[in-house]
Amino acid sequence: MRTRLGLSPSSEALARRFAEVRALSVALAGPLSDADATVQSMEDASPAKWHLAHITWFFETFVLRDFVPGYRLYDDRFPFLFNSYYEAEGRRHARGRRGMLTRPTLDEVLGYRAYVDAAVEAALPDLPHEARELVRLGCHHEEQHQELLLTDILHLMSENPIEPALWPGARKVPVEMPGPLGWIESAGGLFEIGHDDPHFAFDCEGPRHQALLTPHALADRTITNGEWAAFIADGGYKDPRHWLSDGWAWVKAEGVAAPLYWEQREGVWTRFGLDGRRPIDPAAPVTHVSLFEADAYASWAGLRLPTEIEWEAAAALHDDMTGNQLDGAGPVEPRPSSAGPAFYGDVWEWTGSAYRPYPGFRAADGAVGEYNGKFMSGQFVLRGGSCATPRGHVRASYRNFFYPHQRWQFTGVRLAKDL
Amino acid sequence: MRTRLGLSPSSEALARRFAEVRALSVALAGPLSDADATVQSMEDASPAKWHLAHITWFFETFVLRDFVPGYRLYDDRFPFLFNSYYEAEGRRHARGRRGMLTRPTLDEVLGYRAYVDAAVEAALPDLPHEARELVRLGCHHEEQHQELLLTDILHLMSENPIEPALWPGARKVPVEMPGPLGWIESAGGLFEIGHDDPHFAFDCEGPRHQALLTPHALADRTITNGEWAAFIADGGYKDPRHWLSDGWAWVKAEGVAAPLYWEQREGVWTRFGLDGRRPIDPAAPVTHVSLFEADAYASWAGLRLPTEIEWEAAAALHDDMTGNQLDGAGPVEPRPSSAGPAFYGDVWEWTGSAYRPYPGFRAADGAVGEYNGKFMSGQFVLRGGSCATPRGHVRASYRNFFYPHQRWQFTGVRLAKDL
Amino acid sequence: MRTRLGLSPSSEALARRFAEVRALSVALAGPLSDADATVQSMEDASPAKWHLAHITWFFETFVLRDFVPGYRLYDDRFPFLFNSYYEAEGRRHARGRRGMLTRPTLDEVLGYRAYVDAAVEAALPDLPHEARELVRLGCHHEEQHQELLLTDILHLMSENPIEPALWPGARKVPVEMPGPLGWIESAGGLFEIGHDDPHFAFDCEGPRHQALLTPHALADRTITNGEWAAFIADGGYKDPRHWLSDGWAWVKAEGVAAPLYWEQREGVWTRFGLDGRRPIDPAAPVTHVSLFEADAYASWAGLRLPTEIEWEAAAALHDDMTGNQLDGAGPVEPRPSSAGPAFYGDVWEWTGSAYRPYPGFRAADGAVGEYNGKFMSGQFVLRGGSCATPRGHVRASYRNFFYPHQRWQFTGVRLAKDL
Amino acid sequence: MRTRLGLSPSSEALARRFAEVRALSVALAGPLSDADATVQSMEDASPAKWHLAHITWFFETFVLRDFVPGYRLYDDRFPFLFNSYYEAEGRRHARGRRGMLTRPTLDEVLGYRAYVDAAVEAALPDLPHEARELVRLGCHHEEQHQELLLTDILHLMSENPIEPALWPGARKVPVEMPGPLGWIESAGGLFEIGHDDPHFAFDCEGPRHQALLTPHALADRTITNGEWAAFIADGGYKDPRHWLSDGWAWVKAEGVAAPLYWEQREGVWTRFGLDGRRPIDPAAPVTHVSLFEADAYASWAGLRLPTEIEWEAAAALHDDMTGNQLDGAGPVEPRPSSAGPAFYGDVWEWTGSAYRPYPGFRAADGAVGEYNGKFMSGQFVLRGGSCATPRGHVRASYRNFFYPHQRWQFTGVRLAKDL
Repeated sequence: MRTRLGLSPSSEALARRFAEVRALSVALAGPLSDADATVQSMEDASPAKWHLAHITWFFETFVLRDFVPGYRLYDDRFPFLFNSYYEAEGRRHARGRRGMLTRPTLDEVLGYRAYVDAAVEAALPDLPHEARELVRLGCHHEEQHQELLLTDILHLMSENPIEPALWPGARKVPVEMPGPLGWIESAGGLFEIGHDDPHFAFDCEGPRHQALLTPHALADRTITNGEWAAFIADGGYKDPRHWLSDGWAWVKAEGVAAPLYWEQREGVWTRFGLDGRRPIDPAAPVTHVSLFEADAYASWAGLRLPTEIEWEAAAALHDDMTGNQLDGAGPVEPRPSSAGPAFYGDVWEWTGSAYRPYPGFRAADGAVGEYNGKFMSGQFVLRGGSCATPRGHVRASYRNFFYPHQRWQFTGVRLAKDL
Repeated sequence: MRTRLGLSPSSEALARRFAEVRALSVALAGPLSDADATVQSMEDASPAKWHLAHITWFFETFVLRDFVPGYRLYDDRFPFLFNSYYEAEGRRHARGRRGMLTRPTLDEVLGYRAYVDAAVEAALPDLPHEARELVRLGCHHEEQHQELLLTDILHLMSENPIEPALWPGARKVPVEMPGPLGWIESAGGLFEIGHDDPHFAFDCEGPRHQALLTPHALADRTITNGEWAAFIADGGYKDPRHWLSDGWAWVKAEGVAAPLYWEQREGVWTRFGLDGRRPIDPAAPVTHVSLFEADAYASWAGLRLPTEIEWEAAAALHDDMTGNQLDGAGPVEPRPSSAGPAFYGDVWEWTGSAYRPYPGFRAADGAVGEYNGKFMSGQFVLRGGSCATPRGHVRASYRNFFYPHQRWQFTGVRLAKDL
Repeated sequence: MRTRLGLSPSSEALARRFAEVRALSVALAGPLSDADATVQSMEDASPAKWHLAHITWFFETFVLRDFVPGYRLYDDRFPFLFNSYYEAEGRRHARGRRGMLTRPTLDEVLGYRAYVDAAVEAALPDLPHEARELVRLGCHHEEQHQELLLTDILHLMSENPIEPALWPGARKVPVEMPGPLGWIESAGGLFEIGHDDPHFAFDCEGPRHQALLTPHALADRTITNGEWAAFIADGGYKDPRHWLSDGWAWVKAEGVAAPLYWEQREGVWTRFGLDGRRPIDPAAPVTHVSLFEADAYASWAGLRLPTEIEWEAAAALHDDMTGNQLDGAGPVEPRPSSAGPAFYGDVWEWTGSAYRPYPGFRAADGAVGEYNGKFMSGQFVLRGGSCATPRGHVRASYRNFFYPHQRWQFTGVRLAKDL
Repeated sequence: MRTRLGLSPSSEALARRFAEVRALSVALAGPLSDADATVQSMEDASPAKWHLAHITWFFETFVLRDFVPGYRLYDDRFPFLFNSYYEAEGRRHARGRRGMLTRPTLDEVLGYRAYVDAAVEAALPDLPHEARELVRLGCHHEEQHQELLLTDILHLMSENPIEPALWPGARKVPVEMPGPLGWIESAGGLFEIGHDDPHFAFDCEGPRHQALLTPHALADRTITNGEWAAFIADGGYKDPRHWLSDGWAWVKAEGVAAPLYWEQREGVWTRFGLDGRRPIDPAAPVTHVSLFEADAYASWAGLRLPTEIEWEAAAALHDDMTGNQLDGAGPVEPRPSSAGPAFYGDVWEWTGSAYRPYPGFRAADGAVGEYNGKFMSGQFVLRGGSCATPRGHVRASYRNFFYPHQRWQFTGVRLAKDL
């Protein structure tokens, strides 16, 4: 993987960062039993244990194996088990069978983590620049998996008829309903887009380049649960005219009639979360909707989704607009905010942009080069980060991407319109 | 379920039997982690935890709920989770999603068992005859699940690329290869078939009735691994002429080329078992073959499989011919025997008989009546019991049944011929 | 294929028989357009054109190629296209893609027929006995395909929303409703079963052997459409207790709620047939029901299906009880009869017997030996013949067989009970 | 559907255009038998008869039914059968079952065409402007289906093992191999993109808008069969590093190893076409490759695909660069050209642009508004037209679109690079 040029942190700062990131992953797994950490609830998701091991394998392979002479693998069999999609790194265990790995146990995987952590910490002061960049990359990679670990474990819990609450929920503080959508207008014109500051970024965020925008406006907040309930009540899921053709086929094939994890119980819309099943909060941002649903909502509203360029141009001007992000282990969920429009946090915002390379993009050579470029077909870009995104992980140029039917991430909707 | 008429054991004997059966199930789960006990490796198999809970649910439902006034369910949600196929007992959790139940944990399920065991033991002295019959039935039902628990957990372990050995294996004592097949001849004629003695039997084992046999002979032992390797070496899996049409389609679709769990490693045939992967023992009975494979082998050998009537008539005359059965927790596997022909134990023997009702059979009313009759399409009968069948569970009239492609049970082959 | 020993007809008689059989196939295809004759409506069915060519390929291959020196194949490519399941005869076109063969056209296939017919007719007087037996077998084989041609084309027409009527229907003569079921009783005992008379039979009909029957009774007629409508009205398709487990899974997966081709139109049950869609005739035998449905009906009625041995024993005593069979091209359908119980014709009667070999059965060597034995898993036996079975094709020993979910043949239900 | 504003042709010109377009469709169906015109070879394709009827239904519905008082439908059942994806027009026959329609016959569909043609011709002089626009749209719509008819029938013929040649092939004139790729360079900057001239265009081609391009170059011709054979020989289909992740999954799942219709026969690459199977012409443009293959080829070559904006900017400057297009019924295929770079014709050129709306695009209301916008997820844009595209149908702004795995159209590859 080729990352964008950046300032390298000092050894100490890097060691501190490494320790913090590694500790958070373990904390997130805190409430999990061995079984919770083992089962795979669908092919898109991975077991928590697998996440914990895979992000460790990344450091072991690309840092310790490649840069630390005499390093001995913790277990010869783990590279086969915990490689994910790096074809260049050789054979790997089929993605859909990750849930079969009852052994090694969660405790053994935590032992693997401790072994690799100690080795990385010992090696850090003497690592060459290239290896330190890989440590830095590994921390960002681990942060991505922290979010996936949370959303995957939520999906698993939702498949259990007894709907376990993983964390006791925080007390809900009632919040006023937000007012009608306001609009952040832009006259358009030429904008600089993509990563170029001295800090870390993934390869797909660049090269920085000029882009041309037409006059448009973005909503000053995301759509709420209450607004979504109105869409449902108006028959939004039953009228093919609102839907993309593939979206309508998906609605019919899957019987989709509400966001993922929503159920109507005695006439009340509830949602399942990491704190169990509870009534929806009408003031909070809607989440667990697919691109198909986001697009249908926009179509129903007579509006559209923003492009990723429009989004980035606006967010770059509002770097301080930060909502609810992941600050530590606990039952994350999008929260209503009285603090004004947030571009970062709460929910990933579907854009109308297909995930494709920027002008001048080229994938790097070698195994790490497989990182992002090869996923550039069939997926849409999301921007902004969610309540499950580790704080500090996102930035204006960050490009997340999922298929248009996927919705087990904390995904939501910001509307846009032409001026 | 309607069982055949039988002598009822005394309260004490029944309590002792109940305690022994219940204890063996827990012992079998001894080496399992919470995760091992939770994961479902295929739709045909169930998690060990599910087996442990389901057989407990049987006692709780049909004995405690129905016959013990004031009994309180251990957990209201368990009947939904742990009912299996009793449609009359209401909604149940989808079979293919049993592996999602990371909660309740294995420890919680063991707590459920202890609660129900105590209640049954307290109630036993005062239970009416009908309820005691159900306790007795529940013990037989639990023995069936003990065998399934072992074969399901073996399948799960086999799906893990690191191939965990659940139990340390016993030391292998080399045994002489058995000689050529001998034949047990029968002049045919009228035989009494089916259950009628005073002991327990499942409903499908009766009514006892006369059956007419033509002159024939049964092999005096089952086919060995060594003989099976010769079938493979002769191209047995590559020649459609040996195979039933559905069997050949299965071979091609699944790429079948050897018994389940066999792999050739550096030119040597190995098999995976509860004690890990080891070379096959050429003198031991071949196992983990499907009816399709058993029939193809017989066809290749110019012989045929026995009918279930032929088998029962012969076995009734040789009630002492007992091989390796389940006597306690450990790494069961079929063993070669120098002790002469065994009809009971080591491997279930595929017969050429479709599983259909005997003349005069009628399913009982009520939920328990769903027990056997409704499975009477598409399956074949197996006879004799295996190394994983609890000792004392089988008898000459016992009818086991599986689909012709299934082979994760300890299934083997005895040949027959017309005279 | 090995057929039962039989008297060979004279050359003249055989030539006459060959000509008649061959002519009827062409007549059955009379109302078909080139497209009608080409399309395959499901994998179980074959295009009419394919039937016409395949039964011709049988004569060309096993008679002309093998016994007529100097015979030249009509077209080198046809053996690949029109072989069906004879693995020994080499590669063949995938069954599910038979509908892709828009070329050769129907006219070209009729040309192929004429070429082969002429060659067989010219060769007949000089053919050795073995070849003449194969001509005789080919005629019976063709009669089987005549029935399939009719049922396959009916299925295809039913897939067309405009529901074409292939033949103008005969005028319906109102018939009195049959009275309540009467019973043909049998005291049981030893019976001779299977083929042994001097006439033709398929290999699976023998060897003739003794069978033992318990006291029982067979209904004196099959179940009517009117009786079936009562089963539906009583919720028969909605209550799992009536159904085999695999049957209930099939009902739910396929949404089955009535016999194939039945639809309720403005409150009236109608059926689709070769003469288009019409109201059901309540007095006529119900048809297009699966074994699963037949078994559920019997279970609902508190009765059971006959075994094939019971059926044959009764039918052998009533060889004159003949109903509606195929006498020429036209819109066949089961008809009500005031003429007393018919064992032959109108509908194939599902038995409760799995299709397995008789004692002493052995498949013949060579390609023709693949004929019947290899289908002996998973299927049930039907007896008696239908309105689409060429008159003269059936006999008491005839064993037809289909999978328990299949119902596009003219299949119906005769009940039985134990005495 | 909303089309871009345009000059309306005179009545006479429109009548002439209508007559020509309608006649070409019938001519294309000339060599088809009734069966050829009926069978559907895969869900993506439609039967020729269906195309001929569907494009007729378009005129009948949106022109005659809506604008001609007293018009009587040719057949009440046809709207259900021949609607395609217009949800607003009500229920329609399932796409995957179009091949079941053996009735109406090809002759009857030609009768339907004649009836509608006569009615349109009679009505034309008096139609209001809106209806005349719909006739114009219908002609373009029919031209789209002419191309699909050819590619669908080619696919059907390819499924027949005897590989019928639909048209006798033209004599092949040997052509010199093209030289190495040359490059058409662009300094980038602002360009006007999208439709705005007075002629017809589909709604998705606008609004015309400014777009910003970076410096780049486009190849001056498309990739040839000879060049593609070198990619295969170099292991292009076996190295995951060249492939998009979804593309690699597709290659493995489908066993893809060459362009569609290619087969190696005795060491020689051949292709199947409307004139049968022949050796590939190494000098001709490669065709029947998917976006996945096109992208992998570019990646292997160290280059990339053009964006649709780059393509349009270049093509707008070279409106005269026209290759082989559809001028009449016959065995179309891409041809080598010595006449310099062609932007139009021979093969559709995959671009790296996802099919998404232009800035300011809004779908029109009503049934025709479903035309293009709802397909804007998951598909990629192709530009330029092919040998099967009716001459005059394409223009610089034309946006064709298919899923990245589809390749039964005449699709090819032009490379690009950054400067």
